[in-house]
Amino acid sequence: MYWEIVKFASSIYHMLKTLFLTIITVFSIAVPAFSQDQDSITVKKITDEILLNGKAYSNLFTLCKSVGQRLSGSAGMYKGEAWGLQTLKDAGAEKVYLQECMVPHWVRGAKEQAGFKTKKRGADPQFHVLAIGNSVGTGDKGVLAQVIEVKDFNELERRKAEVKGKIVFYNYPFNKTLLRGAYGDAVRYRGRGASAAAKYGALAVIVRSVTAAYDDNPHTGALNYNDSFPKIPAVTISTKDADNLSNDLKGNYAADNFFLRTNAVMLADTIGHNVIGEIRGTEFPNEIITIGGHMDSWDPAEGASDDGTGMVQSIEVLRALKAIGYKPKKTIRIVLFANEENGGKGAAKYAEMALANKENHIMAMESDGGAEYPRGFSCGMTKAQYAKVEQWKKYFEPLDADKFPFTEGGGGGADIGPLQKNFKTAQFGLSTTGQRYFDMHHSALDVFEKVNAQELHLGATVMTVMVYLVDKYGL
Amino acid sequence: MYWEIVKFASSIYHMLKTLFLTIITVFSIAVPAFSQDQDSITVKKITDEILLNGKAYSNLFTLCKSVGQRLSGSAGMYKGEAWGLQTLKDAGAEKVYLQECMVPHWVRGAKEQAGFKTKKRGADPQFHVLAIGNSVGTGDKGVLAQVIEVKDFNELERRKAEVKGKIVFYNYPFNKTLLRGAYGDAVRYRGRGASAAAKYGALAVIVRSVTAAYDDNPHTGALNYNDSFPKIPAVTISTKDADNLSNDLKGNYAADNFFLRTNAVMLADTIGHNVIGEIRGTEFPNEIITIGGHMDSWDPAEGASDDGTGMVQSIEVLRALKAIGYKPKKTIRIVLFANEENGGKGAAKYAEMALANKENHIMAMESDGGAEYPRGFSCGMTKAQYAKVEQWKKYFEPLDADKFPFTEGGGGGADIGPLQKNFKTAQFGLSTTGQRYFDMHHSALDVFEKVNAQELHLGATVMTVMVYLVDKYGL
Repeated sequence: MYWEIVKFASSIYHMLKTLFLTIITVFSIAVPAFSQDQDSITVKKITDEILLNGKAYSNLFTLCKSVGQRLSGSAGMYKGEAWGLQTLKDAGAEKVYLQECMVPHWVRGAKEQAGFKTKKRGADPQFHVLAIGNSVGTGDKGVLAQVIEVKDFNELERRKAEVKGKIVFYNYPFNKTLLRGAYGDAVRYRGRGASAAAKYGALAVIVRSVTAAYDDNPHTGALNYNDSFPKIPAVTISTKDADNLSNDLKGNYAADNFFLRTNAVMLADTIGHNVIGEIRGTEFPNEIITIGGHMDSWDPAEGASDDGTGMVQSIEVLRALKAIGYKPKKTIRIVLFANEENGGKGAAKYAEMALANKENHIMAMESDGGAEYPRGFSCGMTKAQYAKVEQWKKYFEPLDADKFPFTEGGGGGADIGPLQKNFKTAQFGLSTTGQRYFDMHHSALDVFEKVNAQELHLGATVMTVMVYLVDKYGL
Repeated sequence: MYWEIVKFASSIYHMLKTLFLTIITVFSIAVPAFSQDQDSITVKKITDEILLNGKAYSNLFTLCKSVGQRLSGSAGMYKGEAWGLQTLKDAGAEKVYLQECMVPHWVRGAKEQAGFKTKKRGADPQFHVLAIGNSVGTGDKGVLAQVIEVKDFNELERRKAEVKGKIVFYNYPFNKTLLRGAYGDAVRYRGRGASAAAKYGALAVIVRSVTAAYDDNPHTGALNYNDSFPKIPAVTISTKDADNLSNDLKGNYAADNFFLRTNAVMLADTIGHNVIGEIRGTEFPNEIITIGGHMDSWDPAEGASDDGTGMVQSIEVLRALKAIGYKPKKTIRIVLFANEENGGKGAAKYAEMALANKENHIMAMESDGGAEYPRGFSCGMTKAQYAKVEQWKKYFEPLDADKFPFTEGGGGGADIGPLQKNFKTAQFGLSTTGQRYFDMHHSALDVFEKVNAQELHLGATVMTVMVYLVDKYGL
């Protein structure tokens, strides 16, 4: 890109023009009130501090490579909590503590097996599957049954009479034209598909992975059993193998039995913790600003983008404010939430304790959509609060992060949502371009190497700028 | 992300609310004039066609894995031209042809060597360097001399008396706080550093790689010799090794000689081609819309993002318009430009022939900044033209690609810029979030695997939408 000969030939004229315009601009900017000027200076300080000296990327490296997966109840969760305490201290938190909560303890067990069992195929073909989180196992004998493919719940309803004694295969595509809405559209089958099929006597379900990627990686995640129906085993299958299976079912294997063995088990709830670090506010210590991501992650990889990035960005907010010498008026509290993925117990406990302690939560911010280029925040708050937020867009425009979609009284994410029930807490969810996230989400690809340092730090920058503005001016 | 239990508990209310709002919205949208409604439908058709059936990603795979690097004059360039002709035909171009132009033929030769030559170190350490494109070689004997490190041209000027007989090492950092401006800021040293140092008697130069990445990959690119001074060898060094070298120079190796051998040679110009495919306009065939990327690429990798993505996105514009059954009023011409990287000869020839043939070029669009999430277009045109373009922003907002920075009479890129001299051609440069591009740019990392299919196709989508609007309404 940019052929330099052409470029430099015309560069002198443009340099002079730019210089002239810069001088004009600087003088124009210098006119407004002092406080606005001060804010622009602080925004620049925050940006420079994080983009040049940011620690989020190196913190993420340590988390991913020294701790790794952090599923609720696993040894990784406890290692993660220790990492969180230490990292919050290192970032400059004045008070660091754990908030206990009971979390589910689901264990995957030995590797899953899935394939047609037939004399026509010499060896059983091994499809790429992963048990869905919270699902029961098949037992050692596995499940051996015909597979019935349906596209969606409507087709399941139409063909409910055929389902009994079979394995239901939901082959619902990830609709890329919905952009950021594709996940919410497709995840229904992973979340509710097992019980929906069990209602009609299915023995197990196979769910096409909820991802835009077309490869061999199955993408797990949680399911939610409806207690009215039997709990049946559930696996997710890679997108390529979903097509392979679909083709097999159209061809020679239509009448053959499929073998599925999963070894998952849900153990008794165990003790987990929200990991919390804070700086006490200088003027309004009882007004609390919560910023967080979640500690737990799925077991196939490192939980880098879900949600290591959210944790290290949140910690970076605290570190950067201290590094530039800003003394928050309100209490800044960083929360690394327990158990977002398969229970939400950390978020529930945090809201419960906030209520019990009669805390005043004026703002909560969450990053849990990966660390792609930040486009702004989804804003769940009152109209009056939003009017104030909109006036600050000018500070986000130079970063191209000035999209603030608004939902009156809506939530900013799964972990801060429960606060909304009891407080008038303005909610901010970091929003990103978000097209690469679901390629790796909940799969073996969710590793450190998929995260770009600059995009990660830009996300932390816009988070810090918003926290600074709310801290200074209130909402 | 998104704990499903929490989500589904509140989902029914939101589904009903969304349904209600959708019905309201659909009725509201249906009110305006027919033509606007028709445009929204066409924009949706384009989006669906490219995001669901797009061929850009598979075309890029073939280009990267079957052709590979395509430096001007190399065998890869000729393979690339054949790929271009065939791919344009397959996409539905009615007329496909080559436009001949002479291109430089620079050859890297055997692998470069660089390191201190001293008894203190047992073996010469091997720094990661690459000869800069267009640079002369050192000859077999190499250059053996002390290294003098300077941060920038100012420091070079201050210390010009020390330079004679030495190797100048430009250690200018890539300023990440400039976001999309960091490359233009730092590339001066790669482009002009050799001649600036030769002016004061330097024997060679080493230039810190122009990249945000911190790793062992040197990033090449072109230099431009000033004929007033001797042509001296020039290499780029990886960012990690730039720091290593800087530390060595501060320590034990300050007075030692550094050995540099490069084997590059500039051969006689050779024949290259712009590869062109077009659809003749149904109403105004003499009004030409040019859309392009460049064919040539640097030799360390596959030229995936620079600029394979620009080529396949441009070809996708033509394919998608045909696929949705749109008959362009004006002539749509896809140009795969020769020799953008180290000569700009293809662009110059295209503009020259346009003038010679008295062609009427109303619009030109270029994609040469990689295929990250598209943020919009840099617009170089008249104020009147821009006023029209701004009215179309509404079609780009749903795609989050509605940033249209304007420069009156400016250019949209290196390959379409020359058209601006002779025509009032509105220029559109695809603009992306652009923070990952320079991590791989001109290095061994510029491979297919770094490109995301959805982001690539979103870029092609916004390009196609803009071409459709200009074709239909003019500028």
